[in-house]
Amino acid sequence: MFEARSKRSDPTRGVVEREAFDSAATFVDQYTVDDYFVDRAIDLAWLGVGRTHPNPLVGALVVKDGRILGVGYHQRYGEEHAETIALDRAGEAAKGATLYVTLEPCTHQGNTPPCVDHVLQSGVSRVVISTLDPDHRVNGRGVQILRKHGVEVDLGRRAERALLLNMGCFKRVMGLGMTVTLKMAATLDGRIASRAGSRDDITGEEARRFVHRLRAAHDGILVGINTVLVDSPRLDCRLLDSVEPPPAVVLDTHLKFPLASSWLDGNRTVVLITGPDAGHQKAKDLEEAGAHVVRCRTEGDRVELGDAIRSLLDRGMNSLLVEGGGELFSSFVDAGEWDGLFMFFSPALFGPDGVGLSDRRVDRARVGAVHAGISMISGDMMMSFVNGKTRRLLLDRLL
Amino acid sequence: MFEARSKRSDPTRGVVEREAFDSAATFVDQYTVDDYFVDRAIDLAWLGVGRTHPNPLVGALVVKDGRILGVGYHQRYGEEHAETIALDRAGEAAKGATLYVTLEPCTHQGNTPPCVDHVLQSGVSRVVISTLDPDHRVNGRGVQILRKHGVEVDLGRRAERALLLNMGCFKRVMGLGMTVTLKMAATLDGRIASRAGSRDDITGEEARRFVHRLRAAHDGILVGINTVLVDSPRLDCRLLDSVEPPPAVVLDTHLKFPLASSWLDGNRTVVLITGPDAGHQKAKDLEEAGAHVVRCRTEGDRVELGDAIRSLLDRGMNSLLVEGGGELFSSFVDAGEWDGLFMFFSPALFGPDGVGLSDRRVDRARVGAVHAGISMISGDMMMSFVNGKTRRLLLDRLL
Repeated sequence: MFEARSKRSDPTRGVVEREAFDSAATFVDQYTVDDYFVDRAIDLAWLGVGRTHPNPLVGALVVKDGRILGVGYHQRYGEEHAETIALDRAGEAAKGATLYVTLEPCTHQGNTPPCVDHVLQSGVSRVVISTLDPDHRVNGRGVQILRKHGVEVDLGRRAERALLLNMGCFKRVMGLGMTVTLKMAATLDGRIASRAGSRDDITGEEARRFVHRLRAAHDGILVGINTVLVDSPRLDCRLLDSVEPPPAVVLDTHLKFPLASSWLDGNRTVVLITGPDAGHQKAKDLEEAGAHVVRCRTEGDRVELGDAIRSLLDRGMNSLLVEGGGELFSSFVDAGEWDGLFMFFSPALFGPDGVGLSDRRVDRARVGAVHAGISMISGDMMMSFVNGKTRRLLLDRLL
Repeated sequence: MFEARSKRSDPTRGVVEREAFDSAATFVDQYTVDDYFVDRAIDLAWLGVGRTHPNPLVGALVVKDGRILGVGYHQRYGEEHAETIALDRAGEAAKGATLYVTLEPCTHQGNTPPCVDHVLQSGVSRVVISTLDPDHRVNGRGVQILRKHGVEVDLGRRAERALLLNMGCFKRVMGLGMTVTLKMAATLDGRIASRAGSRDDITGEEARRFVHRLRAAHDGILVGINTVLVDSPRLDCRLLDSVEPPPAVVLDTHLKFPLASSWLDGNRTVVLITGPDAGHQKAKDLEEAGAHVVRCRTEGDRVELGDAIRSLLDRGMNSLLVEGGGELFSSFVDAGEWDGLFMFFSPALFGPDGVGLSDRRVDRARVGAVHAGISMISGDMMMSFVNGKTRRLLLDRLL
């Protein structure tokens, strides 16, 4: 054995362990049991994606003594709300239980009666809510009514992760313009393809299914023209049951989009964002084939992101999922023009020949990403973030 | 609004949602309440790091009706075991509760009485355990005794994550040779430095504190000579109270280690692994300054990893934390010569000038990483993996 120059054993003998135990308590509390159950409610909420528009995604759980007594999620526009389903499933057992719900229960008669009445009737003694409902008919009134009736309300649990369920819906309701969500998948060494021009499946099917949920949660899916030419991605929602994919939007400064694209064969809505002077004949041909051509200002050799976003907003598109490539991803990050970010990592290494996730340096402070969640999906990891600026803007009014 | 070529609304109207609800149930169950509490017990176990040797790290929680009634962790060799502390803190309330413990309770009289007796006396009705104890005096007998007395035992929860607490200890006890743990920190785009020759703090202090725990859990910390020359890392445990850092081991084929290194000033144990013919006078000078010089076979221009590991094992070193750089990291991954892997990601981008995590391509199957855990530590993310081969080898005998 190497002769240690100082004895490693027992340096703390005699030191009272009180501090360690206090920190132990903190350690245990960092991610609480409440957080855990709210996370499960958020998992449930995602299952309604693509069917609840213009309503938000909502999930709920009824829990007593550590046992889940009922679960629910908003399944389709016009149908029952998540908390009502979960409470009905719990039945009489809901008395004295805790309701976990990702959004403030509604207080108005819509297609269904006000949920807050249902919550009060159920006899739950405590409600844990991620955020208020931005809808002006509810915004804070649900919480007020519950508290007035003696129900304990804990607001703000896993708020960032819950925001990512409904960012587009919330920003629309609040009149805050376009929602931009970035999604990238990379190997552990941050490569999005094994070499230039190569198309590689980075993650497994379960992670891809979640990506399909993300797609279904947006009004459009944005990619750069190089991604279209290299990958011919389908950008659909085929791993979900009966959910139609939203329009594909391509940043295509020089209108290189192939007339032979399979997107033009079917009934996919295709929007091509191009420069003011790009190929007028090609534009005509593409429009004849069913594509929408939208002309925007350019900056250097690229379509101006801000102008592209304004043009899409003007045409009623309120949320975009940006799926790459790396240049597009890093230009959105660098410009601060994003609200949510989902990163998938696969446990592989592509090495120096691989294509990098980012074409530029963006410091941690400038990225400004606030953690929302982190999950293992089969063999892959998913991290989610909210832009710090968006977070402030929304949570100022939702907490 | 873009005219949709097919109506996006209501494609599933009339489809019974039964399947979705079944999948919802699965979704909720994927990461269970039991998993959650075992994870908290594992968090606690880490707090004992650096003080329990040669005993393993163990954490425990007593939970009833969703409430944590007591917590404990093994704090120091010779002192009380985790489950005993947690049960004592719960007191009478432990009757009918569930004990979560990261390791099978012991059945033999050591410095303390057998824990299994304490568990039976406490009146808990259920014990959730991550893995069996590899110690031949216990191995499976603890579980047997509990079951014989009517206590329900659930074995194998979060087994991979629990293995990472005690990989070195378990492999030593089981006679399975050296334990190699890899640790790397990168930006989201997989860069470990902003440019060649630059030293960058990637993660924040809380993540670094966890790295210091990892260091304290190993017999040696291994780095390449380039990392020493470029970064002058301290590789110590200064963020932990009164824990001495283990020896620093440097792969230094040509014996470039600087005689002026601050490691040689203090009482740090320094081990330099070099080639058979590297500078004999330099070796003498370094040894005079207090370093240990170990000569190993080379392969091409590098020390042979296998021979280096054997040499360290021969000298009583049973576990190594490999902290880079990228070449060393990927050569260990490529060779399959690793047992545990901890990856830290910081939400920044270094771009193409940044130094990559890996100097080569290693496919997912060859990496063979099995997920163990994923956590947010302040602003950073931590992922942990077990080598699939190691997992099989150990869990075959510990589940």
